[in-house]
Amino acid sequence: MGYKVPVGLCNKHLHLCQADQDILFGKDYQMTPMKPLSQPGQFAAEEKVELVGPKGSLKGIRVLGPCRPETQVELAMTDARALGIQAPIRESGSLEGTPGLKIIGPKGEVEIDHGVIIAWRHVHLTDEQAKEAGVVDRQIVSLKFEGFRGGTLDNVLVRAGVKNYLDIHIDTDEGNALGLSNSDFGEIIIHEEDK
Amino acid sequence: MGYKVPVGLCNKHLHLCQADQDILFGKDYQMTPMKPLSQPGQFAAEEKVELVGPKGSLKGIRVLGPCRPETQVELAMTDARALGIQAPIRESGSLEGTPGLKIIGPKGEVEIDHGVIIAWRHVHLTDEQAKEAGVVDRQIVSLKFEGFRGGTLDNVLVRAGVKNYLDIHIDTDEGNALGLSNSDFGEIIIHEEDK
Repeated sequence: MGYKVPVGLCNKHLHLCQADQDILFGKDYQMTPMKPLSQPGQFAAEEKVELVGPKGSLKGIRVLGPCRPETQVELAMTDARALGIQAPIRESGSLEGTPGLKIIGPKGEVEIDHGVIIAWRHVHLTDEQAKEAGVVDRQIVSLKFEGFRGGTLDNVLVRAGVKNYLDIHIDTDEGNALGLSNSDFGEIIIHEEDK
Repeated sequence: MGYKVPVGLCNKHLHLCQADQDILFGKDYQMTPMKPLSQPGQFAAEEKVELVGPKGSLKGIRVLGPCRPETQVELAMTDARALGIQAPIRESGSLEGTPGLKIIGPKGEVEIDHGVIIAWRHVHLTDEQAKEAGVVDRQIVSLKFEGFRGGTLDNVLVRAGVKNYLDIHIDTDEGNALGLSNSDFGEIIIHEEDK
């Protein structure tokens, strides 16, 4: 039996840099935390924006805080297609050469020229949990899920570190394809050849 | 190596019964086939409708022809959630106890009281291909997919029959979760215990 990790479904969302937040919400605006996220210090804000691509727009997209060095929009592939954007699958923060889009906030608009990604599915563990699970930071594993729509997702990135919280981060396409909710668990499958 | 089958991605769509087509498009209306589908005799029509659920609506949803005994709406789970409908995962035609919704056509509206499903993923083969693949009609298999978002979908229904055309039918959530397009292939994985 592989190590079990709870599912954390990620709906489409964005992180803002301070400069973009200033334009979208006004200078010195303070975001209102709605709920803390599983990874320590991060929160989902009450605030939402509209995303506009060449083919369509998506309203009510939640901002996550606190601000980051660069604005980053994380979409499921279904969302990216609806906007008409060919977003690559990337690790968070790896934004070079990614497409942009227009963001509309209550106080202004920003046209980002890069920053739109589909998040590379990953599993967060503390260093101690990683040891228990027999994996190391940045190892590639698979995750097996039970249920009527069960299956196995390959090429899942391990992110182990002291500040991490045990969590599988998959997007709504992945969650829906496998019929998963946040009360489900995935099992880490280690491929000997990837160790 | 398992038997290879080409991917056929199914976008959200609906099949109409004659009575509902009469209301939505007018009596004796003839659908305009846009392109034939992989399964013989079926076609995607030029005609589209709007679907309305308690939480939202989806415009431009394509009608598939010819008419069927019962109206059936096939959504990905992402679509069902957008409409605010809890649609079950069902085999085509198995509509008892499924939810309904409102359909708006150019000539009228229909409120169906059942018929909305998320299609149970399945693989079509001719009897001969099934024999070659070592599977039988209604067997449960898994499908393995390669690529950056590769993985394995379990609980896939085999539909073998003389009139079938070799094709994997998965919805847009499943296709996007695994990064698949219609030019990709899946490999049938047979579980000995399910034979």
